[in-house]
Amino acid sequence: MEGRTMTYCVGMLLDEGLVMASDSRTNAGVDRVSTFRKMFHFERPGERTMCLVTAGNLSVTQAAVGYLNERLAQDDIPTLLNAPNLFEAARVVGDTLREVYDRDREHLEGHGVAFTAEAIFGGQIGDAPPRLFRIYGAGNFIEASAETAYFQIGETKYGKPILDRIIRPDTPHETAMRCALVSMDSTMRSNATVGPPIELLYYRGDSLAEPAQYCKFEENDEYLRDLRRSWDDNIRHAFNELPSLEEVFARDDDKPKKKRKAATS
Amino acid sequence: MEGRTMTYCVGMLLDEGLVMASDSRTNAGVDRVSTFRKMFHFERPGERTMCLVTAGNLSVTQAAVGYLNERLAQDDIPTLLNAPNLFEAARVVGDTLREVYDRDREHLEGHGVAFTAEAIFGGQIGDAPPRLFRIYGAGNFIEASAETAYFQIGETKYGKPILDRIIRPDTPHETAMRCALVSMDSTMRSNATVGPPIELLYYRGDSLAEPAQYCKFEENDEYLRDLRRSWDDNIRHAFNELPSLEEVFARDDDKPKKKRKAATS
Repeated sequence: MEGRTMTYCVGMLLDEGLVMASDSRTNAGVDRVSTFRKMFHFERPGERTMCLVTAGNLSVTQAAVGYLNERLAQDDIPTLLNAPNLFEAARVVGDTLREVYDRDREHLEGHGVAFTAEAIFGGQIGDAPPRLFRIYGAGNFIEASAETAYFQIGETKYGKPILDRIIRPDTPHETAMRCALVSMDSTMRSNATVGPPIELLYYRGDSLAEPAQYCKFEENDEYLRDLRRSWDDNIRHAFNELPSLEEVFARDDDKPKKKRKAATS
Repeated sequence: MEGRTMTYCVGMLLDEGLVMASDSRTNAGVDRVSTFRKMFHFERPGERTMCLVTAGNLSVTQAAVGYLNERLAQDDIPTLLNAPNLFEAARVVGDTLREVYDRDREHLEGHGVAFTAEAIFGGQIGDAPPRLFRIYGAGNFIEASAETAYFQIGETKYGKPILDRIIRPDTPHETAMRCALVSMDSTMRSNATVGPPIELLYYRGDSLAEPAQYCKFEENDEYLRDLRRSWDDNIRHAFNELPSLEEVFARDDDKPKKKRKAATS
């Protein structure tokens, strides 16, 4: 379990641009909980901008990000800054994970540590529209589309229902960012190894500039506290507005025995 | 994977009584999806009433329920109808699971099938207040309390956040029942092996009678459709009422470089 991150990250491909969020906690057993950044940003203003969030074994993902960064200035190999399009840039990320795999896997497994890594990678290069990829530990990847407007990695289940109910390509970026935070909050409540600080980023499509909005929420952030309290209140209100079950039981009063008997052994 | 149920069940211990819900789908690989009841009710009106919901290998849980039912009339061994209190009744359920384990585990494992079983068991016997237990495959169990008002079994993660936000001991039973359905709906959306019919039951505390309310929702049930549509609408509304992120970015405008730089490699 050494350096294993039970991260939660989400990336969204919206008509307006990209939203990415990540937590920053790393868990290596109950007594070692540390904080490491899992969101990385690469850009050449006016030409390209890219964001990477990672989950899995921290030594693996940090090694991959280290390689990606080291090579940015090189021109003789494919890098994030010379890739002709975002598909090729995603291949650079995938190939880098494969390189770490070839170098480290045997050694990790010799110590009983699994090679685990996954990433969400989004951005825009030149005139092409923004794109978003989910990259697996094997270096392969899939792309978001109008039908699949978001990807999650890490501890994904707790925070998924709210994304399914809210996120569409035409969701405004401000709503999407709040949804990412609520999804993150639901995950943090249920999994102690996912925790602040939370990084949240909005890249405005076609700006080819640094993120239009970026914020790092520390533990006890005032806005996060307000958001959680407000969400709890609003959810309760939303419940009170749901159709009453009384009509169902009234409906069943027409045939109480049949319905009722089904429950009785 | 033979007869493996990726069930979702939830049980709640409220001041007003007990709420239990279960789905009815059994999955044994992609091409075999069947429907089996996972909610069972036992009672002796005026004296005791109990409800059991199960998850795991269907042959295991059905065998256990079969034993429990077969023996109801016996007086020479502990049964659900002669147990002096609900703790002892939970022991009857746990011991029955152990019996199935002793009989079947070796044979199951010989065919590469894991022995899996879990249950939620609630009810009331005599003057004691209603109680709720979560019973594990090993036959051991834990009890709900004011701090832990609900238990889930099966595919639990998708439906947990909404329970955490709504369910307290003093939650009215009607709200709790709707919450169980929303939690079930979130799970069904994300896991195709959890599916209708949905059984939903409310036992009114101290009634010692059959469930005050019971309903089985079939696929395409009108109320479930209304509930889902209404919940989607209300959630969107709840989002629009959340505190705006603008204040956060306004706040950060005081120190844009420091915050912004943290995101740039």
